[in-house]
Amino acid sequence: MNQRNHKPHKKWNIGVVGATGMVGEVFLNLLETRKFPLQSIRLFASELSLGQSRKVNNEVLPIETLSENCFDGLDIVFFSSGDDISKVWAPKAVLSGAFAIDNSAAFRMDPSFPLIVPEVNFHLGTQQPTIIANPNCSTIQLVVTLHPLCKQFGLEQVRVATYQAVSGAGKAAVQELLDQSHQLLKNPSYKHLPTPQSLPAHIGFNCIPQVGGFGEDGFCSEERKIRLETRKILNLPNLPITAWTVRVPALNVHSEAAWITLKKVVSRDELISCLKSQQGLHVESHPHESYPMGYQWAGRDGVAIGRIHQDPDDPKTWMIWIVSDNLRKGAALNGIQIAEQLVQNQL
Amino acid sequence: MNQRNHKPHKKWNIGVVGATGMVGEVFLNLLETRKFPLQSIRLFASELSLGQSRKVNNEVLPIETLSENCFDGLDIVFFSSGDDISKVWAPKAVLSGAFAIDNSAAFRMDPSFPLIVPEVNFHLGTQQPTIIANPNCSTIQLVVTLHPLCKQFGLEQVRVATYQAVSGAGKAAVQELLDQSHQLLKNPSYKHLPTPQSLPAHIGFNCIPQVGGFGEDGFCSEERKIRLETRKILNLPNLPITAWTVRVPALNVHSEAAWITLKKVVSRDELISCLKSQQGLHVESHPHESYPMGYQWAGRDGVAIGRIHQDPDDPKTWMIWIVSDNLRKGAALNGIQIAEQLVQNQL
Repeated sequence: MNQRNHKPHKKWNIGVVGATGMVGEVFLNLLETRKFPLQSIRLFASELSLGQSRKVNNEVLPIETLSENCFDGLDIVFFSSGDDISKVWAPKAVLSGAFAIDNSAAFRMDPSFPLIVPEVNFHLGTQQPTIIANPNCSTIQLVVTLHPLCKQFGLEQVRVATYQAVSGAGKAAVQELLDQSHQLLKNPSYKHLPTPQSLPAHIGFNCIPQVGGFGEDGFCSEERKIRLETRKILNLPNLPITAWTVRVPALNVHSEAAWITLKKVVSRDELISCLKSQQGLHVESHPHESYPMGYQWAGRDGVAIGRIHQDPDDPKTWMIWIVSDNLRKGAALNGIQIAEQLVQNQL
Repeated sequence: MNQRNHKPHKKWNIGVVGATGMVGEVFLNLLETRKFPLQSIRLFASELSLGQSRKVNNEVLPIETLSENCFDGLDIVFFSSGDDISKVWAPKAVLSGAFAIDNSAAFRMDPSFPLIVPEVNFHLGTQQPTIIANPNCSTIQLVVTLHPLCKQFGLEQVRVATYQAVSGAGKAAVQELLDQSHQLLKNPSYKHLPTPQSLPAHIGFNCIPQVGGFGEDGFCSEERKIRLETRKILNLPNLPITAWTVRVPALNVHSEAAWITLKKVVSRDELISCLKSQQGLHVESHPHESYPMGYQWAGRDGVAIGRIHQDPDDPKTWMIWIVSDNLRKGAALNGIQIAEQLVQNQL
């Protein structure tokens, strides 16, 4: 209705698939707090959530299940329900005329679809509805850090070790960490714990060097995602980049310890000034007086970096600590920023 | 007395400084379980522990404080009370005729004293009492892994990110993690937690990218220790090696994610066979079917490695996950192994 009076103020019909999951819930919260120009919103989840509802902008909305033509009339559908759901349903959303912003890994490496971190590579090349892939959480925070360095100095090599929170594996994994911690505080023996269901091993007071399934090359899928998605987003198909991805007993927010080798030697001032020019990147520029940590960055936007120091053996290499809320910038926030860009472009 | 009848069966008079600390207690336990040839044992700690006692080999021993000539008659004194105590008292132990096995950082980088991991570099060059430095916990497990590779193939570069348990920071840090975890399970807000006393920040469900104090170069002391001690132990004073050391909310056992670049390309079989030849190294040789983790390796001896895979960008580089109980091989066990070597050498 607004559309008729104020042309630029089109409001949007949004669908959220996976609305009752951790990322879905953050997405709904962000739609409200960022005052996304909503005309209507519809919430989808599996049959397990049928009968439930969620409140958005003071309106109580029922949870629906996916069904043929369920996306009719929607402009943008956000998917956060896993690869299998996205593979089947994201193309249907596009067929029904919506942009599908897909938080799963289903289309990320498909060259037909863009893989977008808005402050890094938003250039769709089309205003036609399509699938837009949202990168993996641990990739996003790395890429926001790498992008300005890549643009200004060039990248020669990246090595990163992650410290990943359980929220990245969903609500059941969070509950697993809470339950195990509770049990272990009462009785420190792991023999009394039930078999883990959501993670490949016990996570209570333990680190698991595995996020996702393994390939023949010995890398787990999260490590492969960081490698391949970073290359695609930065458009550096041959960038030498390897990761160690490790699940740690933290509830939310991923941290990363990175060695970033530039193509040239730059001064600390040049480096810091380059990093500070990056939108969405909070830079704690003193090498150690303060540094960002997970517990401080839960619920905050953007990516925070600190402990920026030079490798004494190789002046082209900088060591940087990178922190971001994996449910926000690592997932829902990045998705909504993509939607905001679509809104801006279409107006 | 045995000495007279069976020359090789000399028994030893041992002192333990820091006997009530976490490492000291493990050391006492190992003296018993490894059937160290004890003639007598004396236990030392600060005045805070006066009046306490500890049982060793079914004998109840009082805790003594340090005083002039307190080491008289001892053959080996194990120190695990921090740098300040060792600086003052380890030289006194040597003056009184004992070997001082020092778990502090006080003498590690002093070129006058050996820094020993027995299965790597036990060659004292003297049978005269001296200070023998026990390396830093995170260094030991790395060096046991690097040593065979260094010997057989040569090392070009090492990068390592650590996942370090709180037991490395002592009993109070362990209690801090337990207390914070307990509090956070009841109320997830960090605002309600008391200010941390033993660690630089809240560790409950959080990772802290700092172990020890910072230098001007931006590295914290644990990172510097890994760099300098590894170089000294492997006798590679110019080895390019950098570390990220991060405290994680685990109780005991450190893990490390390493990129190890050899001087030449070797096959996987050559690499595994080389690693398996190293005493004290447990090798899970399949690239991912199983891997060691902290909770499984608490209370176990030696160093365990797994997830051994090649860097696809650089065939000389291998990625290895390294786990060890930081109180055992990382501290007390390494110390007692040094003592056992002394025993063997002197007989």
